[in-house]
Amino acid sequence: MSKEFLYTEITNGIASQIRGGALKAGDKLPSVRTLCQEHQISMNTAKRVFLELESQSLVESKPQSGYFVSKLLSVKLPLSEVSRPSLIANNNEPDELISKVYENMGKKDITFFSIGIPSGDLLPQAKLKKEIINATRELKEGGTEFEELQGNLKLRRIIALRSLPWGGNFNENDLVTTNGGMNALSFCLMALGKPGDTIAIESPCYPGILQLANGLGLRVLELPTHPTTGIEIDALKKAIPKINICLLIPNFNAPLGSCMSDENKKEVVRLLAENNIPLIEDDVYGDLYFGPNRPKCCKSFDKEGNVLYCSSISKTLAPGYRVGWIAPGKYKDKILKLKLLHATSSITIVNEAVANFLKTGRYEKHLHQLRRTLQNNYQNYVQTIAAYFPEGTKTSRPQGGLSLWVEFDKSIQTRALYNLAIKQNISIAPGRMFTLQDQFENCMRLCIGLPWSEDIQLKLKQLGNLAKMR
Amino acid sequence: MSKEFLYTEITNGIASQIRGGALKAGDKLPSVRTLCQEHQISMNTAKRVFLELESQSLVESKPQSGYFVSKLLSVKLPLSEVSRPSLIANNNEPDELISKVYENMGKKDITFFSIGIPSGDLLPQAKLKKEIINATRELKEGGTEFEELQGNLKLRRIIALRSLPWGGNFNENDLVTTNGGMNALSFCLMALGKPGDTIAIESPCYPGILQLANGLGLRVLELPTHPTTGIEIDALKKAIPKINICLLIPNFNAPLGSCMSDENKKEVVRLLAENNIPLIEDDVYGDLYFGPNRPKCCKSFDKEGNVLYCSSISKTLAPGYRVGWIAPGKYKDKILKLKLLHATSSITIVNEAVANFLKTGRYEKHLHQLRRTLQNNYQNYVQTIAAYFPEGTKTSRPQGGLSLWVEFDKSIQTRALYNLAIKQNISIAPGRMFTLQDQFENCMRLCIGLPWSEDIQLKLKQLGNLAKMR
Repeated sequence: MSKEFLYTEITNGIASQIRGGALKAGDKLPSVRTLCQEHQISMNTAKRVFLELESQSLVESKPQSGYFVSKLLSVKLPLSEVSRPSLIANNNEPDELISKVYENMGKKDITFFSIGIPSGDLLPQAKLKKEIINATRELKEGGTEFEELQGNLKLRRIIALRSLPWGGNFNENDLVTTNGGMNALSFCLMALGKPGDTIAIESPCYPGILQLANGLGLRVLELPTHPTTGIEIDALKKAIPKINICLLIPNFNAPLGSCMSDENKKEVVRLLAENNIPLIEDDVYGDLYFGPNRPKCCKSFDKEGNVLYCSSISKTLAPGYRVGWIAPGKYKDKILKLKLLHATSSITIVNEAVANFLKTGRYEKHLHQLRRTLQNNYQNYVQTIAAYFPEGTKTSRPQGGLSLWVEFDKSIQTRALYNLAIKQNISIAPGRMFTLQDQFENCMRLCIGLPWSEDIQLKLKQLGNLAKMR
Repeated sequence: MSKEFLYTEITNGIASQIRGGALKAGDKLPSVRTLCQEHQISMNTAKRVFLELESQSLVESKPQSGYFVSKLLSVKLPLSEVSRPSLIANNNEPDELISKVYENMGKKDITFFSIGIPSGDLLPQAKLKKEIINATRELKEGGTEFEELQGNLKLRRIIALRSLPWGGNFNENDLVTTNGGMNALSFCLMALGKPGDTIAIESPCYPGILQLANGLGLRVLELPTHPTTGIEIDALKKAIPKINICLLIPNFNAPLGSCMSDENKKEVVRLLAENNIPLIEDDVYGDLYFGPNRPKCCKSFDKEGNVLYCSSISKTLAPGYRVGWIAPGKYKDKILKLKLLHATSSITIVNEAVANFLKTGRYEKHLHQLRRTLQNNYQNYVQTIAAYFPEGTKTSRPQGGLSLWVEFDKSIQTRALYNLAIKQNISIAPGRMFTLQDQFENCMRLCIGLPWSEDIQLKLKQLGNLAKMR
């Protein structure tokens, strides 16, 4: 067994004991010497294990005493509630609220807890620049020419390859590239829905999806969703006769960060295929897992081609490149036709550059780092919220992704909090943005994709104080 | 008056006399010495005038005798017919035919008379590469970040500036960028149309527009269109009570190359505004005029914000960049919302690079060269067609753009011709692609955006021989 493999095994083993609760906050860990003897490893390797756990904020060292499970982990805010939306389709779009939050986008000096993308500081910008320059130099006509309709072949190959570990079961011919993830969802909804059709989604749900469905004239049925395990299967079962399409973010749903179990994924795929209801799966956060392994997807269990799997690099690498894709199963011809008519071609240069970047393995290294940063951010956010937010504040427990869902006492209205916070240059996403119904007025989504700093901590503290003033 | 200005004035003056017919094929032109004396210019300038006219295929020199109006211009093929489509909306899409023509796209060794974009050899690839590399280096986050929703400000400014000469009457705030021209049209149709609505268009019409309208569930009403003056105003007047939207390519319509007069443009704008029917104007070919001046647009006469003006750089600079725009008039909010939902952002790097390229003035220089090349190609195509195509062949008289419309005798079916030609590695666009009705079976569109060569001439000759065999 290689040294490197042993090191990873031991680190992950201790990490899961801590996360699973077998080791509790304040517990003393074995000494470096004991670890060496137990696992027959060198002192250096043992030290690396503890350093790694420390960098993940799982353990802390005390001078002369050794390593202890981090007290941060003892911060246990109550879990936010399972949503209970009305089970009658409702399309009351919070237009004005969304415009208000969007109108400040891009302005300087504002801290954007409201956005759903990682900060540019967390992206491998220098390496991406090199890839763009190389692609521009090496493409036959400098990228002025159209790509083939289905998209860059190298990119489709590497995406298919990367899907093997989670059982994607597709090859390059099963994929169609798009101009980003929203463009992928837009093609899926245009291909499958007609005005008046009903679409089932999670609640709360990413506002772009709500608006897109609403804009295409679909009736939106929001289903009860658990903050850690995702959509409630029983509710979906009951809704089956009413729905024509289902759209889910099974892995690290924005804004909850919930992750469906494999059994639930399998069951949803079976149920929908049996009733001939197509499933659109949005997996843009799938690679941002905090646990040891990447979760599977609904697509992993799709035998009938009934799942339209959508993803992109917008949440992990470069939002401004607009590189996304669909594995549309049996709906491929429809998607290809929509792409031809509404987009003609993806953008040749950026797709070539991303394909080359993904091939080098630098992407995996970057993802590893990004996941660790996001997980640390989450810990830091929760600790700060516990210290400075009003009593009774609950949060989701994201197991990956970019979002933390915060639920205040019913007396605290996040629309009003937005108005107060923006005056202090803090932008939040009020809960009402994530539904077409009258709910979540006491909730908000915080983006955890900002680099942690004293300033961010200060802004969170300010936010807590504002909420207390209500 | 500067020497350069005089040179251009004199050259354009003689060119219009030839094009207008005041000087006829074979007429002798004044000698170099006479030109010097008449205009008080140097011998060198006078010689440059003739060289320029010769490079435009307008004159030819005979040793010891001087310059004569080119005999090429005496080639006068009969003008193709005014279309007479059924005035009942029809949506019989030639799906199979289009798939057949598209399935060979991008294959090597095929001569693509069927495509509607300029060959890569005619594009300033080296300069564009430099702009991409500079943009990537200089953008704050290397282009990984989103643009502002409305699009790159520099790009919108230069587009607004370039519209001044033809009376665009808009500024940067009136523009929204899109991922190419088809994406612009798709947003306009989604913003304005609902399934069952009727859209009036030219006939023949660009296949992408027909398919897009059809795909969105619109009823398509094709209107009679003159090969040189465009849509027939009387037919449009009669159709008014039946239609909800109108979409025109007033300048160098693909596939005819027709150009509407200013009066007709003005009248169409007035008529549609009066009846509250929005006009989508596709001006992607507007900069590719063969005459001395750029034509105006319908947008030039739009006082009510009822014209949604769409354009792109795909026909002039870089199809693979997917950079387009809309000046949506009073429909701006709807277009912005669609962009947010279906695309999120344009692609930061390519839009920055194009903005910088357009600012340098290199674009005007490139366009000047491209227009001349296309015009020469047109002359060469017509001469070859006159020599080698079956008796009775008619053509359009494009005054700009990338298309030549060829009309055979009714006995020659271009679907069958396609099958024969593709075996000889020649791809054409059969006329039936340009309509949703049963017409144009004896017509085809030829792209004149391929660099002229002996090989292209040979392929045209082969095509003529195949048509004669029918």
